[in-house]
Amino acid sequence: MPRLLIISSEIDEYRKRIEQANLPNLEFTENPAKCDIVLGEPRLIRDALPLLPNLKWVQAIYAGVERLMDSDLRRDYILTNARGVFGELMSEYVFGYLLLHEKKMFERHRAQQSKTWERFESGVLRGKTLGLLGVGSIGAHLAEMARHFGMTVWGFTISSETSTHVDRYFHPHHFDKLNAPPSPLPKGEGILAFANGLDYLVVVLPRTNDTNKIVDANLLNALPSHTIVINVGRGNAVDESALVDALKEGKIAGAVLDVTEQEPLPEDHPFWTTPNLLLTFHTSAISYPEDITRLFIQNYHLYIEGKPLKYQVDFERGY
Amino acid sequence: MPRLLIISSEIDEYRKRIEQANLPNLEFTENPAKCDIVLGEPRLIRDALPLLPNLKWVQAIYAGVERLMDSDLRRDYILTNARGVFGELMSEYVFGYLLLHEKKMFERHRAQQSKTWERFESGVLRGKTLGLLGVGSIGAHLAEMARHFGMTVWGFTISSETSTHVDRYFHPHHFDKLNAPPSPLPKGEGILAFANGLDYLVVVLPRTNDTNKIVDANLLNALPSHTIVINVGRGNAVDESALVDALKEGKIAGAVLDVTEQEPLPEDHPFWTTPNLLLTFHTSAISYPEDITRLFIQNYHLYIEGKPLKYQVDFERGY
Repeated sequence: MPRLLIISSEIDEYRKRIEQANLPNLEFTENPAKCDIVLGEPRLIRDALPLLPNLKWVQAIYAGVERLMDSDLRRDYILTNARGVFGELMSEYVFGYLLLHEKKMFERHRAQQSKTWERFESGVLRGKTLGLLGVGSIGAHLAEMARHFGMTVWGFTISSETSTHVDRYFHPHHFDKLNAPPSPLPKGEGILAFANGLDYLVVVLPRTNDTNKIVDANLLNALPSHTIVINVGRGNAVDESALVDALKEGKIAGAVLDVTEQEPLPEDHPFWTTPNLLLTFHTSAISYPEDITRLFIQNYHLYIEGKPLKYQVDFERGY
Repeated sequence: MPRLLIISSEIDEYRKRIEQANLPNLEFTENPAKCDIVLGEPRLIRDALPLLPNLKWVQAIYAGVERLMDSDLRRDYILTNARGVFGELMSEYVFGYLLLHEKKMFERHRAQQSKTWERFESGVLRGKTLGLLGVGSIGAHLAEMARHFGMTVWGFTISSETSTHVDRYFHPHHFDKLNAPPSPLPKGEGILAFANGLDYLVVVLPRTNDTNKIVDANLLNALPSHTIVINVGRGNAVDESALVDALKEGKIAGAVLDVTEQEPLPEDHPFWTTPNLLLTFHTSAISYPEDITRLFIQNYHLYIEGKPLKYQVDFERGY
């Protein structure tokens, strides 16, 4: 009999939704020793890991599962993360901020506040090039939406070329399709050629050792000076002091950061006041219990049928 | 030999682009008495109308041609307006402002300015209902983009039901498909039932006698209080004092106005300081010579072949 333990700040909401689904044979438990399935937040599950003798499967409610990746933590269970549910939310966030920039919404609002009828020209997304640093399921969704706006899409990825909405793929220089290297993502010519042709760079990478500071001074230098950088992945991907310098020196036109190395951001961090840098406090894609429950139900049916679960995390790769 | 007179503030740009197209037999003229074709801005063409004895065809570079509609002006020529080129631009504008609202971009920016890591929740477009007041070529494009964002689309239109991306059509109450009435658009139950179910109302109507103040106190009262109203059509469609009242009393959540009755807006107009009202100074869709020239070329080929031109304006209907 499968027994589910929910470890989440939204436990009641998840329990109610899963109960409504009437899943065959599923029992709920609050006893860690008795459960084989855990659903919840990676941070909380991490602390519970030593208390789960019968653990077989963890369904994380986030996409980012780096809290469960430390090499001294157990890996004797199947970990699935939340995928396929954030693409729509991320699209709303990313294209919202692209359009904020093109339509000069802050500038127009200031004109209104000073009672000035000022018809400065808007920019357009149509015809511009969006670069995706990371092309997983979220990147693929962004690529598709970019196409709807008439944009060209470039993708930089270590291996996958699954999205048909990416016009051109770039890879790390030594990339070999038949023998995809596990690490590291080199910061070679591939990524600079990619950066060179962009109007927008959107970072959608997971936190791994290979993605640390991939957006560094070299990459920022290679971007055209009108480029906007958006990070909706993880804070580790950006060399934060290099980004501050690039913005102060006008090497890029702006940055929108949903994630930072430290969250909440320390009060004395330069990001608060860096020109043309917008912070959004890790809100770009929220895990809605409605979405995550749908995902859990799908995977539960596979679990009881003994079939491979969807969205399994590779502990070696880290995502 | 067809002779073209360009009457536009961007005459050089248009001439260069049309010359590059090497259209068969086309001559340029600066003599109003000699031309049979005029390309340009309705406001300027209006003044020139008495000086054009051989006029056969006017291609307006705007969608709005109300300046050429007055009943005392001549109507002995074919008038075509710009259509099919503004949908993409309007989509960028409309969805930009919808997302500004949902993602609370102004609020987040203020949080950053006060150095507050404040994770207030974003709203989502997905699942919300967009109401189009007017479903012409721009409305159809907005409907399609709304679908890409997972929205439901309702359309209120006097007659056309051509967009397949509209989930539900509403019509004036006495509407009769077989005998479409020329006027007026009644403010009956049809439009209130339409308003009642919306999260967003986007006004995309031309200026005609029938569209005057169609967004009145009754309609604003029928909208749910969380609704945002966006007007990208013409200022006449909105009862301006009713809108100010609705916003002050919180009957709707916000308004984004690209157009107003008087433009530029007089300095003492209440719109400048009405709460939750954003002005964008008639910039939502600019006529790019590149787009308009493409349209002119299409129509020129039809013209010399003696075929019906595209996007003909009906002088009786007014659009």
